[in-house]
Formats: sequence, structure tokens, C-alpha cells
Amino acid sequence: MDLWFTEKHTDDVNFTIRVKKQLYSKKSYYQEIDVFDTYEFGRVLVLDGFIMLTEKDEFIYHEMVTAVPMAVNPEIKKVLVIGAGDGGTIRELCRYNTIEKIDMVEIDEQVVNVCKEYLPQTACAFDDPRLTLYIEDGLKFVRRKENEYDLIIVDSTDPFGPGEGLFTKEFYGNCSKALTDQGILINQHESTYYDSYVDMVKRTHRRIGSAFPVSMVYQTHIPTYPSGHWLFGFASKNLHPIYDLKADEWKKFGIKTRYYNTELHKGCFALPNYVLDVLEDCD
Amino acid sequence: MDLWFTEKHTDDVNFTIRVKKQLYSKKSYYQEIDVFDTYEFGRVLVLDGFIMLTEKDEFIYHEMVTAVPMAVNPEIKKVLVIGAGDGGTIRELCRYNTIEKIDMVEIDEQVVNVCKEYLPQTACAFDDPRLTLYIEDGLKFVRRKENEYDLIIVDSTDPFGPGEGLFTKEFYGNCSKALTDQGILINQHESTYYDSYVDMVKRTHRRIGSAFPVSMVYQTHIPTYPSGHWLFGFASKNLHPIYDLKADEWKKFGIKTRYYNTELHKGCFALPNYVLDVLEDCD
Repeated sequence: MDLWFTEKHTDDVNFTIRVKKQLYSKKSYYQEIDVFDTYEFGRVLVLDGFIMLTEKDEFIYHEMVTAVPMAVNPEIKKVLVIGAGDGGTIRELCRYNTIEKIDMVEIDEQVVNVCKEYLPQTACAFDDPRLTLYIEDGLKFVRRKENEYDLIIVDSTDPFGPGEGLFTKEFYGNCSKALTDQGILINQHESTYYDSYVDMVKRTHRRIGSAFPVSMVYQTHIPTYPSGHWLFGFASKNLHPIYDLKADEWKKFGIKTRYYNTELHKGCFALPNYVLDVLEDCD
Repeated sequence: MDLWFTEKHTDDVNFTIRVKKQLYSKKSYYQEIDVFDTYEFGRVLVLDGFIMLTEKDEFIYHEMVTAVPMAVNPEIKKVLVIGAGDGGTIRELCRYNTIEKIDMVEIDEQVVNVCKEYLPQTACAFDDPRLTLYIEDGLKFVRRKENEYDLIIVDSTDPFGPGEGLFTKEFYGNCSKALTDQGILINQHESTYYDSYVDMVKRTHRRIGSAFPVSMVYQTHIPTYPSGHWLFGFASKNLHPIYDLKADEWKKFGIKTRYYNTELHKGCFALPNYVLDVLEDCD
């Protein structure tokens, strides 16, 4: 049998992977959820036709949204995670014994349940006693919070569909309010390679910049995302991602990572000119 | 009309792009040469079924093999380029007025002629008076050279087919001999993301390391190459790519780049752990 899944990266570019078996396929209230078992990438979670993660390379995404802020502020105790229904971000956070409390807000319970059943590699820390899972809209949840979190990670889908509200100006303003003085906001920031994404990146960067004095972007290679070149945002009121990097303290955590290291931490904030041009155009 | 070109990144992963028109398709003595005009990437050069360059992102590759060595040794005067039939590397080198002589050795004249006709964006500097083009095997050419070049760029196809000899121990040893004391060798170093490439990367890194005291690897995002995560090798007898970086001198060249900048220069040598593991395994 020759079964292939195709993701359209643009109207004119397809990324196609060979599938062993379609393990799950159902519509939730919010989105279409598929899980495939594949030859090259292991199990793959697909939402509304877009690859969210693969077992082969999810470590890249999940290390880069957690280790970067933890190395800038190793004192982080209270974390809010928005989205992240697959559990990968939670798994990485739970490796830090110093973290005391994690609130996770996922709008779509069905994603959590599907990942618990089919993606044990990422959905392995939902029983951690430090975690409280809220099934609700992150946009509304964060409105009620003030000076409460040291770290907010917005591990959302793209800025259309159920994740849309997590890219609004109101949302970033509320994140700023919900964060402590030393707090950090990390968000997935899309990519600038394909023209069809550029406006979203600009809009997102402009909105975060208006809510935070420090707003920077870092890059990561995620081969199963469109173009393989993915950006994350680092925003805070007081902490700079490189000047305030505490490399030795992070190393003392003794956490073995497969992508992140503290040299790469410094390197990933050095962006290509064509990306800088897009971001500077926001100012 | 719905015409698509597919490159197999692995047996189980296809990258497929929509084609406006197939502009050229012929076998040379060495390889199958195709040029497509595409919707997303402009014109695309394909050798033996593998994308060599696209008009959309060739600047990334060509800047990264030229600006990196020029910023470490801005005194580079004499350059040998092996492969590079599309002319993109030559175009970038010719932007440096201080370079006095460029020898280019390409085994397949038909690639040069096809690129001159169909890829004027890259094949635009073949008339530069500093350039001498030799149509012959780079492996043999470099055997005759001693203490002659400040920079050798191996802009080859993959380590199978016509480019195979350019990944041998003998070749790297001859490059070392052909280089001056301050000389630098840059080579395309494949990628470690897909398992099918890992052995080639290891072998290449081991061989270069046995020929040069300084042998390092740097990374680049090239979305139209398999995984989008591409490596280059930097080797030399005496110069370190970061400790010897002359950022201010490079900036004085006044060359406008779309990918490279001197911050990214430092950043691109900071590799992910899973890449470091592969490279360290060579020692």
C-alpha cells in the first residue's frame, strides 16, 4: 500500500510524507484532528491539515520554547502555557524541579485526549502534580490574571482558526499584565520565508512590541514546518535574552537536551538580513 | 495545466513544487540537467533530480560560502572555486574588488552553458576579467597546485555522481597543499537531519579534520534543500572562523547581503546538540 499525506506549504509547494497508518481522524468542535504513523517521522499530529508535530523532531520546538526562557531566568517558578495540547511543552517544563506551578489552558480537550492516547512521547507529563489543566479559551483566561506568572508560553496553532485570538493586541497586553516584573513571554512567531506568511509575522511582531519593552525574535530549524525556518518571539519587561543569559546556572539544572545548548542560545538570536528587514519594517 | 516537479528527500518524503514551464531538459556526459520555471521559486536548476538552486533562495547558499571566509580573511586575493557551474559563487566573489584572481574548475561545461542561457541571475559574472574558467576535473586540477590560493570553495553536487571525488581524503589533502598559510577551505557539507545523510557528513568531517588543524562546521537555512537545514565546512591551517573574524573590515567592503551579517556569522557556528553529536562521533 502506498499512502501519502500532503501538507500544502503554499499553493505551489507541497510537502508529502509516506504514511504507515492513519491512527485517528475526527473533527472536534474546533478543528480536524488527525494522527498518522509515518515511516520517516514516527507519529505525526495534524490539525486542520497542518503538521503540528512529529515524533522525529518535536524536541526542537519544545526545547526551544522552554530552555531559552529558563536560561534567562532560572528562577522561574510559575508558568502559564496556552495551547500545547500535545503535552510536549509541559513535558519539557516538568524536567525543571525548580518550577512549582504550571497552569495550562487548552481550548480543545479533544486534542489532549487524542494525544494522551496516540502520542505518549509528548503527552507524558499530564499527571505531574504541579500541573493544572484548564479547558477554556486562553484569551479569556489570561484577562483575569495579574502579576502572577514568571513565564507565559503561547504554544498556539497558526493565526487563523482556533488560535486566532492568541495573536491579538489585547491578548499580548493581557499577557504583560499577567506577568511578573521578571516575567518572559514566549510565542510561536511563524516564518518569513514564504510571502504568504510575512504579513502575519509583521503584525505579530508589531503587537508584541507595543506591549513589551524587550521584544526579540529567535530562529530554529524545524524541518517539518513550512520552509523549515521557524521563528519564536521572546518578550519581557526587563530581561534581555542574551545580556541576561545565565548559561552556568542553566547548565546546573543538568538537563540533557538534543537541540538546545547555551552557545546556540546566543546564536539563534542572530537573524538573516531578509528576516531582519521584515521585522524592522514593523517599527 | 497542473505540472509538478518532485524531489525525493528520502524514500518516504517528497518535496513537490508547481512548475510553469520546463525550460531545459537534457543529459550531459555527466548528469541530467533540468531547468524549470516555477511559481514559488522562480527558475530552478535540477541536476540528476536534485534541486541545486532556485532563484528565490540561492542568495543564502552563495553568500554563506563567500562572505564567511572573506570576513575571516579580508586579505584574500586568489581564489579557487570547484564546481559552481551556475555562477552564483563567482557572482558573489566578484563583488569584492580586492580579489585579484579567481580560478574556477567545473567538470561539466554543459551546466555552465545552460546556466548562462537560463539562469542569468547567477550566471552573470562569467565575463569578469579576473576569472579563468577551466573545464576539467577539480580533483585532478588541485593536485598540481601548491601554496597558491587564499581560499578554495568546493561548491559541489552531492557525494555521489560527478561530485564524488570532491569528498575524498586525497582531495582534501591536496586542497591543504594548494592553500597558503592563511588559506581557508569552504565546502558544502550536506545535512544531518535525515539518517540517510548522516554517514556522508561523518565521513566528510573526518576526512577534512585529518587534513586541517582547524575544521569547523556552520549551519544555514536553505528551505529548498532536504530538511532546509544545511551545513558548510570551514577548514584552515591557522585561522579560526570566530576568533579571527574581522567584522569591521568586512563591513568596510560595503557589500549589501540579504542573508549574511557578521552577527549571524558568529551565530551560525553554534550548532544544535544532535548535529554536534554526529560531528563529535567522527573524532
